[in-house]
Formats: sequence, C-alpha cells, structure tokens
Amino acid sequence: MRSGSLHRYKLQIAYDGTHYHGWQVQRNGHSIQETLQKKALILLKQEVHITGSGRTDSGVHALAQAAHMDLDEKLNLFRFPYALNAILPADIRILSIEEVPADFHARYSAVGKIYTYYIALKDFQDPFTRLYTWYLPYREFSLEALKESAAKLIGTHDFKGFANEAHEGIASYDSQRTMKRVDVEDHGGRIKIEFEADGFLYKMVRNCIGTLVDIGRGRFGTDVIDQVFETKKREEAGTTAPGHGLFLTRVLY
Amino acid sequence: MRSGSLHRYKLQIAYDGTHYHGWQVQRNGHSIQETLQKKALILLKQEVHITGSGRTDSGVHALAQAAHMDLDEKLNLFRFPYALNAILPADIRILSIEEVPADFHARYSAVGKIYTYYIALKDFQDPFTRLYTWYLPYREFSLEALKESAAKLIGTHDFKGFANEAHEGIASYDSQRTMKRVDVEDHGGRIKIEFEADGFLYKMVRNCIGTLVDIGRGRFGTDVIDQVFETKKREEAGTTAPGHGLFLTRVLY
Repeated sequence: MRSGSLHRYKLQIAYDGTHYHGWQVQRNGHSIQETLQKKALILLKQEVHITGSGRTDSGVHALAQAAHMDLDEKLNLFRFPYALNAILPADIRILSIEEVPADFHARYSAVGKIYTYYIALKDFQDPFTRLYTWYLPYREFSLEALKESAAKLIGTHDFKGFANEAHEGIASYDSQRTMKRVDVEDHGGRIKIEFEADGFLYKMVRNCIGTLVDIGRGRFGTDVIDQVFETKKREEAGTTAPGHGLFLTRVLY
Repeated sequence: MRSGSLHRYKLQIAYDGTHYHGWQVQRNGHSIQETLQKKALILLKQEVHITGSGRTDSGVHALAQAAHMDLDEKLNLFRFPYALNAILPADIRILSIEEVPADFHARYSAVGKIYTYYIALKDFQDPFTRLYTWYLPYREFSLEALKESAAKLIGTHDFKGFANEAHEGIASYDSQRTMKRVDVEDHGGRIKIEFEADGFLYKMVRNCIGTLVDIGRGRFGTDVIDQVFETKKREEAGTTAPGHGLFLTRVLY
C-alpha cells in the first residue's frame, strides 16, 4: 500500500454479542472483528485490518462500537454500509462510515466511552430480554442502596479494585479513571444503569455492577465502594456481572 | 378423573416464538403447547391437556397467551409458576395462574384479543430487534397513508378478504368481526401497530399489516381497504406480513 494515497475510515458498528466470543480475533472462537474482516475481504477483495476502540468480552453487545480501517482506494461512503450489511450476518450491522484524518485512531483518539447495563428485578425472566438483561431472582432488593452506591462511583478515583488483571507481567499501570456519570433508571423493574467515563479498565463495568447488585441484595453495605477505592483490592468488591447484560453504547472522540 | 373434584386453572403464558412451530401441537414440529404439556407432566406426574385461547403461527410471539387446564388436585398457586418455569426453556414463561369456574374456557370464554405488530422503517435492520420486528427496506414510505388506512379497519366489517382459508371444506363461516381500535405509534422509525377486536380470523392481523405496508410503500391506494371489505377477496388485499413481527398481547375475558 502506498501511504501517500491512504484513506482512513471510521466505522460505527452495532452487534448482538450473544453468538460471539467477543470483539477481538481469538484463537478458539468466532469474533466480531474476524467476521467483519472476512466479509470486508469478500467485498473489497483485499485484506483489511479493522481496529476497534477496545475489546468487548464474550456475549457483550454494542449499540455503537467504533473502529477504523485503512484503504488505498476511495470508497463510495453511501453504498459501503449497504453492501457490507448485505453479506454480514443479521446480528452485526455497520451503522455509519466516514473518512477521517490519518492521525485518527479508534482506540487512542477516544476521549471517553458510554456503557449501559440492564438488570431485571421481576418475578420471572422475560423471554424477550433474556439475552440482553441480567435477571435477578432476589425478592428483597434495595434499589435505593444501589442508587446511593452508584453515585459514589462518580468522580476521579483509582478503579484498580474494580478491575480484573488484564496486564499480566506489568507491575503497575495507570488505573485512575474519571467517571462522569452513573445514571440509574427504573423502567417497571427493568433497571438501566449507564456509565460514562474517560476510559474503563478490564471488566470494570461488570465488576461495578456486580458490586452494586451485591449491595442491593444486602450482601454488602454501601460503604464497600469507599473501601474498594481505598484498599484497591479486587477481592473486596462484588461478583463480576454476566456479559449478556452489557452494551457498549458509544465511543466519544 | 373425578369430575366432582375437578379444578380448572387459567394460565397466562409469555413466549418467544422464534424457535417454535407455533402454539399448537404439530405432527412435524416443536410447539409451545407440546413443550408446556411435557414439562407439566414432569412436574405434576400426570398427563395434562393445556387448551389455548387459539393458535399462534410459527414464529409468532406472545406477551400473554391465555390457556386453561384441568387437574383433580389443588395446586399451590404461588409455587406452581416458579416450579414450572424452573424446568421450562427460557423462551417460555408462565406469568400467572388462577383457579377459575368449571365453565371458563380459554377459547370460548374470550370476548376479545389484542395483537401488536412491529415494523421498522430504518436504514439498517437493528441486530437487537431483528427477531421481533419486520424490517422494511423501502426508502419511500408514507406512514400517513398507513395511518389513514389503519383507521378504516376500525368498526364492524366482514373481514373475509383479510383472512386465509383455515376452514377447509366448510362452505361458509361467520367472518364478521368488530375491530375496536388500531393504534399506530412511531418510536423513531420502529412502528408499533396494535389491534383490538372481539376476535380475529386466520392470519387476519398479518394480512391487514401486509396490506397496510403495501399502501405505505405506494403499491396500493388507501381505497384498497374499502374494496377488500366489499369484494371479500383475499387476492385483492396485500401480502401476508411475516410472523416474527407479531405478538399476541392479551386475551380479554
């Protein structure tokens, strides 16, 4: 490829993660990135590397994952999403494409992300949202305690205690993040919890949700949030919430 | 069974119809009714016939199908839904159970039904609603014409032209029905169309929807509704909308 004529494109992609082993190409599984790259090869007749804003885990969904790719040809931006969507499986959809400057990078240019998690506090699991919501069978649950604790996550903190170790062999890494908002909405027992931060550590949303749920069901008091910020110990936080309730909602640039 | 001690129970059932060949026990398929009866046999240790309010076709969903069953034992009404749900597949859920008088009949006691149909007028099919919404790829679509025609369905009419023949060998049957309301709501390109009538003929909702969509996309004028009411000819109405956009929302008693 001649770098002089390179075009960089930013994509927005929605996917139902149910049947995938996450975003990133895996040795033993079927990933979103791999599926996109294979279909792009068919359409564009050239190998394309599609770089995401970050990985999403197995079963996690995206309302709008962001990614970039480089091509030495100029694409028809109106036609491209229709053409690629026509050969993609129905659980992955290209939402938009635009040409961006060569220094744009889906991962390093991101200034923030929005994640949304759904939990259900109902007598029975709903057949229609079962793949997109963590169903909680607890009859006693304090949504007030959950809300109070969720507010404690807002601000600049060291979130290390809410992260799983993804940096094996790296002695230290910057685990400070700024949580701009955590909004909790109750839609008749289906609870939507939306997080906006400048960045998220590995499994941070799922560990925050697991902890909030442990607080809501009375396993922990609301002070566990402050405690985990102080000790930075993962084992003092709650369980990791399942991936299927989580959506990468938006990547901010 | 001793009829003197018979207890009749009314059930409300939600199901995602995606993986089933409809409500009714079929020779060549897997039905909701059959799945329920098999699991009830395991739980109750007796053969139970579960009579639905009517059949739903292959791929059609239910937010609340109604049914009844007879047992000679008295059930623990609090425990029963939890116990049956625990062994049912996650795409079928018992929502409620209550004891009803012996003359209650899920089909013959029904005084009306509510059906809801979802269509999407968007650039791309949404991965998350693809199993529950009819995606329409038409760039030109008149929602106004659809709404105007939908209003014409309200009232007492002979709906024979909107029905598929389910009464083979029966020369005539009463095909007059009273449509109480047809509400059309636009949620950002996802259109919800709700029908309430005293009863519905075979495939009537799907044929009404198919006709409304043919009007919206300009294949027919709005006068086709009046014409089909007059001629009662199925071939003058529109296509049959696919089953996966349709929900049996409520059975009225």
